[in-house]
Amino acid sequence: MMYAEEIEIGSRFDFESYAMTAEEITTFGAKWDPLPLHLSEDIADGTAFGRLVASGVHTLAVFQRLAVLAAFAQWDIFAGRRLDDVKLLAPVFPGDSLTGGLEVQGIEFNHPGRALVTCFGWLDTSRGRTLELVAESYVNRRP
Amino acid sequence: MMYAEEIEIGSRFDFESYAMTAEEITTFGAKWDPLPLHLSEDIADGTAFGRLVASGVHTLAVFQRLAVLAAFAQWDIFAGRRLDDVKLLAPVFPGDSLTGGLEVQGIEFNHPGRALVTCFGWLDTSRGRTLELVAESYVNRRP
Repeated sequence: MMYAEEIEIGSRFDFESYAMTAEEITTFGAKWDPLPLHLSEDIADGTAFGRLVASGVHTLAVFQRLAVLAAFAQWDIFAGRRLDDVKLLAPVFPGDSLTGGLEVQGIEFNHPGRALVTCFGWLDTSRGRTLELVAESYVNRRP
Repeated sequence: MMYAEEIEIGSRFDFESYAMTAEEITTFGAKWDPLPLHLSEDIADGTAFGRLVASGVHTLAVFQRLAVLAAFAQWDIFAGRRLDDVKLLAPVFPGDSLTGGLEVQGIEFNHPGRALVTCFGWLDTSRGRTLELVAESYVNRRP
């Protein structure tokens, strides 16, 4: 596990990819974001996109999973603190493959036991950028 | 369904409540945020909180569900656009009951077919405020 002192500003972590399926979009949507465009192909047919679209919270959950696997699981994280400027730039459809990355933008040693690490993160589909965000997490300092 | 012209700045929507269980925290955590503090009571015992804590993405998903049920399902929503200043103010533990609300802060009629509606939203536990955020959504205008 890496303490905050071992994380470097500018270091970049590339994500694995994640396949979005229609079944997962509708299961996640029914539970967490029950709007017509997330519920079924038939119901979504009557919305502006004319087809199923993943919930923005679902896309954000995919970001978090890929970010943990690529970076956060190796850091001695105390807790998340804040997400900022979470931009839903383009829809995510069934069959899309999501990938992306994150880059460390800042580390503030403003607490005796932990530091605030700020990362810029993104997700892309084959059509281009779909999500951008800034994530602030507290990472423990070396004891 | 309400078009953007029918939504009023300052209108407030109170949420139902949502019960966070240990089982849901670990199921959500294993899938979307596999960090030690979300995986099991035993594993979380060795983290800073000494117990299971819900993923921030999970808490955000609860916000979205309650916001849809209280307000968004009645609006003719085109799509979400942006989340800003999502503050994770305090941990959510198993057994916590979450409730909250949202208030419409602004409506920009900056597109011929839709308007950008900005809401301030929050979630509380019995111990106090746990989540605050600003959500921007596109809502269709009257045809």
